[in-house]
Amino acid sequence: MPRHTDRVVPPSPPPRDADPLAPDVWGFADTKFQILPNGNVSLSGRRYALAGLELPELLPWVERVMDIKVPRSGLLESRYPPTVPAAKACDEFRASVALQIGAHYVTQDPLERLRHGHGQTLEEMYRVKHDVLPRVPDVVLFPGSEADVVAIVDAARVHNVCLIPYGGGTNVTDALRCPVEEPRPIASVDLSRMNRIRWVDPTNQLACIEAGAVGRHLQAQLAQLGFTLGHEPDSVEFSTLGGWIATQASGMKKNRYGNIEDIVLDVHAVTPLGVLTRNVVPPRESVGVDARRWMLGSEGTLGIITHAVVRIFPLPEVQRYDAILFPSFERGFEFLQQLTRSRAIPASVRLVDNLQFQLSQTLKPRAEGLQALKRRFEKWVVTRLKHFDPDEMVACTLVYEGSAAEVAHQQRTVERLAAAHGGMRAGAENGRKGYELTFGIAYIRDFVMKLRVMGESFETSVAWSDALELCERVKRRVVLEHAARELPGRPFITCRITQLYQTGVAVYFYLGFGVEGVADPLRAYLEIEHAARDEILAAGGSLSHHHGVGKIRREFLPRTLSPAARAWTKAVKDAVDPQNILAAGNQ
Amino acid sequence: MPRHTDRVVPPSPPPRDADPLAPDVWGFADTKFQILPNGNVSLSGRRYALAGLELPELLPWVERVMDIKVPRSGLLESRYPPTVPAAKACDEFRASVALQIGAHYVTQDPLERLRHGHGQTLEEMYRVKHDVLPRVPDVVLFPGSEADVVAIVDAARVHNVCLIPYGGGTNVTDALRCPVEEPRPIASVDLSRMNRIRWVDPTNQLACIEAGAVGRHLQAQLAQLGFTLGHEPDSVEFSTLGGWIATQASGMKKNRYGNIEDIVLDVHAVTPLGVLTRNVVPPRESVGVDARRWMLGSEGTLGIITHAVVRIFPLPEVQRYDAILFPSFERGFEFLQQLTRSRAIPASVRLVDNLQFQLSQTLKPRAEGLQALKRRFEKWVVTRLKHFDPDEMVACTLVYEGSAAEVAHQQRTVERLAAAHGGMRAGAENGRKGYELTFGIAYIRDFVMKLRVMGESFETSVAWSDALELCERVKRRVVLEHAARELPGRPFITCRITQLYQTGVAVYFYLGFGVEGVADPLRAYLEIEHAARDEILAAGGSLSHHHGVGKIRREFLPRTLSPAARAWTKAVKDAVDPQNILAAGNQ
Repeated sequence: MPRHTDRVVPPSPPPRDADPLAPDVWGFADTKFQILPNGNVSLSGRRYALAGLELPELLPWVERVMDIKVPRSGLLESRYPPTVPAAKACDEFRASVALQIGAHYVTQDPLERLRHGHGQTLEEMYRVKHDVLPRVPDVVLFPGSEADVVAIVDAARVHNVCLIPYGGGTNVTDALRCPVEEPRPIASVDLSRMNRIRWVDPTNQLACIEAGAVGRHLQAQLAQLGFTLGHEPDSVEFSTLGGWIATQASGMKKNRYGNIEDIVLDVHAVTPLGVLTRNVVPPRESVGVDARRWMLGSEGTLGIITHAVVRIFPLPEVQRYDAILFPSFERGFEFLQQLTRSRAIPASVRLVDNLQFQLSQTLKPRAEGLQALKRRFEKWVVTRLKHFDPDEMVACTLVYEGSAAEVAHQQRTVERLAAAHGGMRAGAENGRKGYELTFGIAYIRDFVMKLRVMGESFETSVAWSDALELCERVKRRVVLEHAARELPGRPFITCRITQLYQTGVAVYFYLGFGVEGVADPLRAYLEIEHAARDEILAAGGSLSHHHGVGKIRREFLPRTLSPAARAWTKAVKDAVDPQNILAAGNQ
Repeated sequence: MPRHTDRVVPPSPPPRDADPLAPDVWGFADTKFQILPNGNVSLSGRRYALAGLELPELLPWVERVMDIKVPRSGLLESRYPPTVPAAKACDEFRASVALQIGAHYVTQDPLERLRHGHGQTLEEMYRVKHDVLPRVPDVVLFPGSEADVVAIVDAARVHNVCLIPYGGGTNVTDALRCPVEEPRPIASVDLSRMNRIRWVDPTNQLACIEAGAVGRHLQAQLAQLGFTLGHEPDSVEFSTLGGWIATQASGMKKNRYGNIEDIVLDVHAVTPLGVLTRNVVPPRESVGVDARRWMLGSEGTLGIITHAVVRIFPLPEVQRYDAILFPSFERGFEFLQQLTRSRAIPASVRLVDNLQFQLSQTLKPRAEGLQALKRRFEKWVVTRLKHFDPDEMVACTLVYEGSAAEVAHQQRTVERLAAAHGGMRAGAENGRKGYELTFGIAYIRDFVMKLRVMGESFETSVAWSDALELCERVKRRVVLEHAARELPGRPFITCRITQLYQTGVAVYFYLGFGVEGVADPLRAYLEIEHAARDEILAAGGSLSHHHGVGKIRREFLPRTLSPAARAWTKAVKDAVDPQNILAAGNQ
């Protein structure tokens, strides 16, 4: 720990969120897409760019693209909450834990157990609204300190209970799904009470933060002190520091702030062998094989992360959004590659394909008067004057953050390279909307489920040379699989290049299709997603860029890691958790 | 692996180095400091900036600073080679391995065994020249392929032999020291035949390189193809890719190219559980706790690294050296901090203290005529016009690499900040010499041993707020320890800030003292180095920034890692190498 610096201790922590669950599962109760009596879609209460807007073009466009009829009424309404399975008895364990952390923080309330028994995969969302979860935790614990967590791990060992750590519940890997075959009681360890920023060290740009701290609260608290973590995953509204570490998360502004492995300098974790700690947090070191690094990507199977020391940054002097149109995905992709080679890369750079560009255009309110005229003029310039094909053109959204000099240097580079690749600036407002659309996509997914459309995202990372073909192959494969099942209409499949690296990119896909009249819509969805992952691996993509393995991609591990690599994973797990206390069963 | 790109396969690999050992142990036979008949010091055959120069000021300055008398003749000449301990019998193992890799590549030659039985710590250098090594490997193996390494590991398991991988032999951690108490035969696995660049992928900026490839050969081979790895540790003349990975190495140009953990995207290793491999090398991924990452910092205890996929960079458009004088270490340090905050950081930035600045000034040939006049004028400007105190002033050396635009942006920032902190540019030539002095320091260490001066370097990393005090404390402690032992003269103790990070810096120390007439010079040295490390830890420094733990710092691990963290290290080791085949005993 730094010694000769004045640490700042922020004011009291934010309250724990009110249950963000019902009725839309993901999101606050005030955040909701709905269909108005006039047939338009509106979004209420959202804190990002779309809030309060009425979207007349969304549903007609969906119907056209997917060749299905979307009902304006008679929606598939959620039947949440489903029947919750009975809890296994674990009275002695509960009593033992209650003694340490307080009886109030040990609950078997069915809704709490339900809430802690799933993440945010499509399957989980579908089951929680329209089916059942076959197994959920038998008890939920809310430790308030590292000592509480130590007591919980000890009690679990003594009473033969298994533990699943719980952060924001936002994973999309079935990481929280309780194994049906687990004979022991399962306790969910919810870190939400451990959400404080313990200290901020302005001199060394460090902060010590508890694992349960939620992204959007961290942003607000650090901003009050003039700092930012810079880590902004799509899930930042709900996901936690501990979850980011356990899943090896990536933030949208990683070009400036780094991915979680760059941000985290120290991790404290309670493990079955004891508490992993160190006496200093140096900027970089070589001290052998360091156990704390193993928490990155551990997905709840090796220990319970209690807090971490992270680097923080002064709030950027300048923040600027921009968007650039390109005549085709290929031209935009070439621009990205040149921009990466220039090393003058803005904080966030993303390239959406034509379909996703069209989607973003439908997420606009009806324009009136001057606004409508302006929009028509812009369209005329793009399509008639610049000869961009509306069915080919794509958009790159950019977020600049940094000092005035840094941003100016990046902007000059972007403008020069964009011009060289046929790009045309589309303005800051489009850039901001494009960036913020990401935060809304989970809400859209939940909304379209009501319209009997199954939708989900998945991602990969891939070398530059293989990226374009991978995108094409995955799209083709989805269309083929959809057709083979004689599902209604056409599938919605779109991608964006969402992260840039020296040696390759991350690619994000959105998939959706109508299931009106389909006998087993969930099975159809799971089979197609599985096929898409198969195609990704065959095309040279990774198993996951940042979502992780969890249980949803476990079966693909043999295609990525050699038998010895998997034997190592198992040997290490058996060695450090011989009783399999941390039995989430991920990886 | 990337699929849609034309890989370049470089021409045949460089030959294995001729034995670089005798008579100076480190370095080629053609590289040598010596005292000329006129009493001046000269350096022959060196490929860096000092080659061929005659240095009249070095010895007088050493005598002044250290308050000792340095002999010009009657030097302490090396008695290398020492008596080599007899080899343990391991006939069946040797026969089994020879069958796979060829009898020619299995040797018990005493000099080969000796060469493979030590690294480059002061103790090892002293013992190998003036004492004995109590244990060296019983056999040395030179595998030529991954299959050879697999066969060696299998044979070791069957015949109960233990293995110590060998790269360039440049560690300064006793990592290669053979444990005297090891009852089994010890085989050194020398990777020098596995030194090929397997392929270069220009599109994705990747290369696949075998573990035994030596730094300076890699530089030359990649440069022929227009690329650089950018990894330049002090030991780059001899150290290998495998060694860099196993020790978690840091290169002097890490600001641009990253440390080894940033450079290496995939590691293939033969372990007792099998061969760790993967099917793709994505730019970044989240696939759980990935065993290949555990090779970073493993120091030969978990597996034998055979090859790695690394990122490479086009040769920089611009390379430029510079040096800036500051009136004091504190002012220079403030400049470093501001430069780091600016994020416009040149590839290498280092700040030497006053003593090291003076040392660099003595490493100059005698100036004649105009050159002498120029030097006197420069000195007048610095000391009289600028009022720099010769006993306080320090120097910052800089290496810029990158595109013209990048370098220009960095230079503007450096000049603005240097001016704000009282800096004065000292020119490119001084910058280049300062940078290259690092490569010569091991030669100087070996040279001064002949003058009965024990010298060594050690390093740490530390938060910004603690760095200056750490430097002061270590210097004071060394002076105290030296005095307490009534050793001759004064100790030479100097430091430089050698790496910049957002949250702190790496600090490098040089230590030396005369031992004329001292009964046990080695013990005196080891005690003082131990005390210095104690002081580093007490002052908030890390156990090591990049040298590693090995055996030399093992005893300090309990002060850095919690008992649970050490229990993890042991549990993992036992799990993946239950027979302790990789028995170097580091960490």
